Amino acid sequence: MSSNHPLKKNVYNKTGLPELGLRNYWYPVLASLRLRKGRPKSVKVLGEEVVLFRNKNKIYALNDQCAHRGARLSEGSCLYPDSDTLTCPYHGWTYSGETGQCVAKLMEGPGITIPNEAKVKTYPVREHLGVIWLFVGDMEAVPLQEDLPECLANTDEWHTISTWRTYHCNWRPLNDNLCYDLHAPFLHRNSPELIFQPIFPFASRVKTIPLKDAKGLGYRALGGITESDYPGLGHFPPPKEAFWRRLKPLGRGQELDPQSSQATKRYGIKYRHMSLLPTVTLVGRPSGDYFMCRWVTPIDSETTLFYSFNAFRRHSTIKTFFDRLSWILWQSWTHDLIFSDQDKRVVEKVRSDREQLSLSDAGVIAWRKFIVDNSRRPNDENLHQNLNT
Amino acid sequence: MSSNHPLKKNVYNKTGLPELGLRNYWYPVLASLRLRKGRPKSVKVLGEEVVLFRNKNKIYALNDQCAHRGARLSEGSCLYPDSDTLTCPYHGWTYSGETGQCVAKLMEGPGITIPNEAKVKTYPVREHLGVIWLFVGDMEAVPLQEDLPECLANTDEWHTISTWRTYHCNWRPLNDNLCYDLHAPFLHRNSPELIFQPIFPFASRVKTIPLKDAKGLGYRALGGITESDYPGLGHFPPPKEAFWRRLKPLGRGQELDPQSSQATKRYGIKYRHMSLLPTVTLVGRPSGDYFMCRWVTPIDSETTLFYSFNAFRRHSTIKTFFDRLSWILWQSWTHDLIFSDQDKRVVEKVRSDREQLSLSDAGVIAWRKFIVDNSRRPNDENLHQNLNT
Amino acid sequence: MSSNHPLKKNVYNKTGLPELGLRNYWYPVLASLRLRKGRPKSVKVLGEEVVLFRNKNKIYALNDQCAHRGARLSEGSCLYPDSDTLTCPYHGWTYSGETGQCVAKLMEGPGITIPNEAKVKTYPVREHLGVIWLFVGDMEAVPLQEDLPECLANTDEWHTISTWRTYHCNWRPLNDNLCYDLHAPFLHRNSPELIFQPIFPFASRVKTIPLKDAKGLGYRALGGITESDYPGLGHFPPPKEAFWRRLKPLGRGQELDPQSSQATKRYGIKYRHMSLLPTVTLVGRPSGDYFMCRWVTPIDSETTLFYSFNAFRRHSTIKTFFDRLSWILWQSWTHDLIFSDQDKRVVEKVRSDREQLSLSDAGVIAWRKFIVDNSRRPNDENLHQNLNT
Repeated sequence: MSSNHPLKKNVYNKTGLPELGLRNYWYPVLASLRLRKGRPKSVKVLGEEVVLFRNKNKIYALNDQCAHRGARLSEGSCLYPDSDTLTCPYHGWTYSGETGQCVAKLMEGPGITIPNEAKVKTYPVREHLGVIWLFVGDMEAVPLQEDLPECLANTDEWHTISTWRTYHCNWRPLNDNLCYDLHAPFLHRNSPELIFQPIFPFASRVKTIPLKDAKGLGYRALGGITESDYPGLGHFPPPKEAFWRRLKPLGRGQELDPQSSQATKRYGIKYRHMSLLPTVTLVGRPSGDYFMCRWVTPIDSETTLFYSFNAFRRHSTIKTFFDRLSWILWQSWTHDLIFSDQDKRVVEKVRSDREQLSLSDAGVIAWRKFIVDNSRRPNDENLHQNLNT
Repeated sequence: MSSNHPLKKNVYNKTGLPELGLRNYWYPVLASLRLRKGRPKSVKVLGEEVVLFRNKNKIYALNDQCAHRGARLSEGSCLYPDSDTLTCPYHGWTYSGETGQCVAKLMEGPGITIPNEAKVKTYPVREHLGVIWLFVGDMEAVPLQEDLPECLANTDEWHTISTWRTYHCNWRPLNDNLCYDLHAPFLHRNSPELIFQPIFPFASRVKTIPLKDAKGLGYRALGGITESDYPGLGHFPPPKEAFWRRLKPLGRGQELDPQSSQATKRYGIKYRHMSLLPTVTLVGRPSGDYFMCRWVTPIDSETTLFYSFNAFRRHSTIKTFFDRLSWILWQSWTHDLIFSDQDKRVVEKVRSDREQLSLSDAGVIAWRKFIVDNSRRPNDENLHQNLNT
Repeated sequence: MSSNHPLKKNVYNKTGLPELGLRNYWYPVLASLRLRKGRPKSVKVLGEEVVLFRNKNKIYALNDQCAHRGARLSEGSCLYPDSDTLTCPYHGWTYSGETGQCVAKLMEGPGITIPNEAKVKTYPVREHLGVIWLFVGDMEAVPLQEDLPECLANTDEWHTISTWRTYHCNWRPLNDNLCYDLHAPFLHRNSPELIFQPIFPFASRVKTIPLKDAKGLGYRALGGITESDYPGLGHFPPPKEAFWRRLKPLGRGQELDPQSSQATKRYGIKYRHMSLLPTVTLVGRPSGDYFMCRWVTPIDSETTLFYSFNAFRRHSTIKTFFDRLSWILWQSWTHDLIFSDQDKRVVEKVRSDREQLSLSDAGVIAWRKFIVDNSRRPNDENLHQNLNT
């Protein structure tokens, strides 16, 4: 059924990209608003079932399976709200959110000895930008800030609006779609945002440059045209689609000009489009005042959470107000809905049993390789093997 | 997906409890009312597809697959109602309900020779207490009475009301849930029946005693408290849940006192809670006038039928009337619905890939072992192997 | 779940009938009306995903997976309608419908070299009788006419009305159902068409005669009765079903009498019922003026398309009008709906893990064997193996 059926040939097997995603990174998993105090909630990340619960303004994350008889902790309750514990619904095993250790088996009374093995796995968890973040891996968590791009990390400088969608496909076709991939001028040419502008430049050659901190790649497109004649076919864009293209290019799709773009001159932003580990995409503007940041969270081998952050640079309260208003009135539906759905429709149906990479896939090839070469691994040798399961 | 996926580690594999249930026992499979004369009906029991049909007030059960070309007999008809036969819809092979032998191939005319192999498996079937019972196994059926507890067998002494639910899980987590398992004081503490009483005793030690006829176990809980303080957590039950607990204990959840309980003194009932082979639970009352009897019928590896019998001792017509009225007005929704759903919600989501049995699981451990040691087996050695497939 | 689960015993494995159908034949796949100009449509045939598209009144069929990154071409568009090409939605790879060759990669500009491997499989496709036909196989397509019976091929002589249903089963039980199989007098006896007539003859012996062109089998039933007594059961048809059977036989279900039937004398039609390769059934009438032609198109191992053609001999415009009117008023619902649904109900639930072929299965046995012995194969030895995968 699925393009990722284990018995099928899968082009990603050769790449070394693990089917369930890159371990040992932070991922956004749930909007803060959806986790109410005292109401545990189950999420799935990189194939692992996790229960989140919120007590006294702190959030905890545990493996969602009671060590005792396998009941779901997410069906349980925060019976002792002052204690940062979660209690299993079945026999009242009560776990510390901090350590995962069972601190009481309510049905056995207070006097018993509880062995150390009465414990569930804990997950490092943070709340940031109205989103709950989990670190899934086999090593001690790095600070969340270490995995965030500046526009998400620095809340003094940036404000954000985030949305999410569930994609019914593996994370890898979506990851390919988001890195520098030359589909936008074609697939998105008639989205509401772009239909009045000239076609984005295409037929360019992309240069991929590792970022200074080795956390990702910057892309720079060289050359590129906005229309052309194809012998035997006709003009691209087709004349019937060209009538409304009366606007000047609005900056999207153009590389940053180091001489003229404020992004570079004022803010030192060198690339319009960047991919960051683990599965983060940044697309900016010549103004340097906006980033669209997408974060891909693998759920399981056939489902992926697509987290989208719109990051606006703070200038003044009034500008912040209008940034947010314009998101509500315009970008929310034109970009986060319609534009993204054009990708979703294609990406969810991609079959991954064969591919034929071409000139336009330089970005995809480089980014896949960068991930395999640079993604974070625990030092312990034994743990290395987990990365590819 | 399921906790019983064949490739997954499963804690029950070690116990020896067969995935599809205990063969060579009687199981309730359908309410009598649901099998109308001349309307064959398909049921599934212990993984086997069975067609039931009713002719001239007798019920028959055959394997639901025509020996000829594999059509479903349950799509067929009782074409000759006076003959206790069922006819396949496809080519009219007509089977005796009594023997399973094909007695006519209608499309081949009356003159032909029908080989002995033109036959389908028959299942012993009975109608009792408004329920249809099937014996599924590899040996000659024992009398139904032999598998029934007294409160279901002796209809002169007892009257019953029965209901059923379908559980979307294997029979084994449900079987664990029903034997003496110390979850009731916790999981059911706020059900409508119990919310006004003190918490059931917990932190008790359970003694398991084989019943005289070796058909099951009786449980006797020793010690037990109804509230306690847990260091670092607080009181159990939590104060916010204690406000309404104003009633005296009503007898449920208390062991039978041999000195004072009418159940023991007058009727010789020694245990409040008993497990009987194959998968039967009896929970009584100090009065000895009521048993809640639950019978777990495995459907397939991921589905289970939960048959619930409320058995009331007959005293007078007027008491029978009020027993039934009180069931309709109170127990039907408080117990057979709400109380049972508290279990269903937890049990259906149990993951069986690991467990950590504890002090409170003495009943579960003993009952699992009792089943493996004592469940009925055909004498033939070759048939033994079927038990674990 | 399905009777065709790969791990299960399957009676068809012994027959040599391939699970996904007979390759190297033409199959009806879609009503012409459902393929609109410039709107690509995805179909599945013999397990292969195919995109159909219509340009300038010609139809093309390609494998529905872009060679580049695996996107579905059926999500793409006919961007250049004058060029008989289809363009992938993702990066604009544009394929010739004629050759399957990629003729442009729109996002790479017009100047690039496109390798020969940038190609998708093409399928021979025809439009005939308001239906789109595909040739699925491993050899050069034969002319469509070669696979059609005369009543579908010769449109001067015949006019047709076609309908379709999707069967949720493998093609093989349906194929068994359609060849000369003695279920009609039983299964269909109470369909609206037949309920007023005597039962069709049964208990006959069938002779199977290869057709002159070796493309199929003709069936001739010898003997046969329309009612009988079955000892211990009663009369067939049962008296309660006989009351309305007042009409004379209307010709259906009777073999053609070479002396008296117009079909044979005037038109040289020798058999009432014929099976043709690949999976075609013809059932005629003594008049020789009508054929019911059923064509079974395997979709995948658990789904089958059932294409039904009603073929009427052309005599006069007025007769054509009344043929079509009578189809609309009568056959459409009595035959193509109700009669066929009686089969569908049974065939979809057939379990194919065992069977016990009998006297009445002579037609099924002969037709299964005929298929294996006579079905078309490519000459190349290596390709032979594909037939059984």
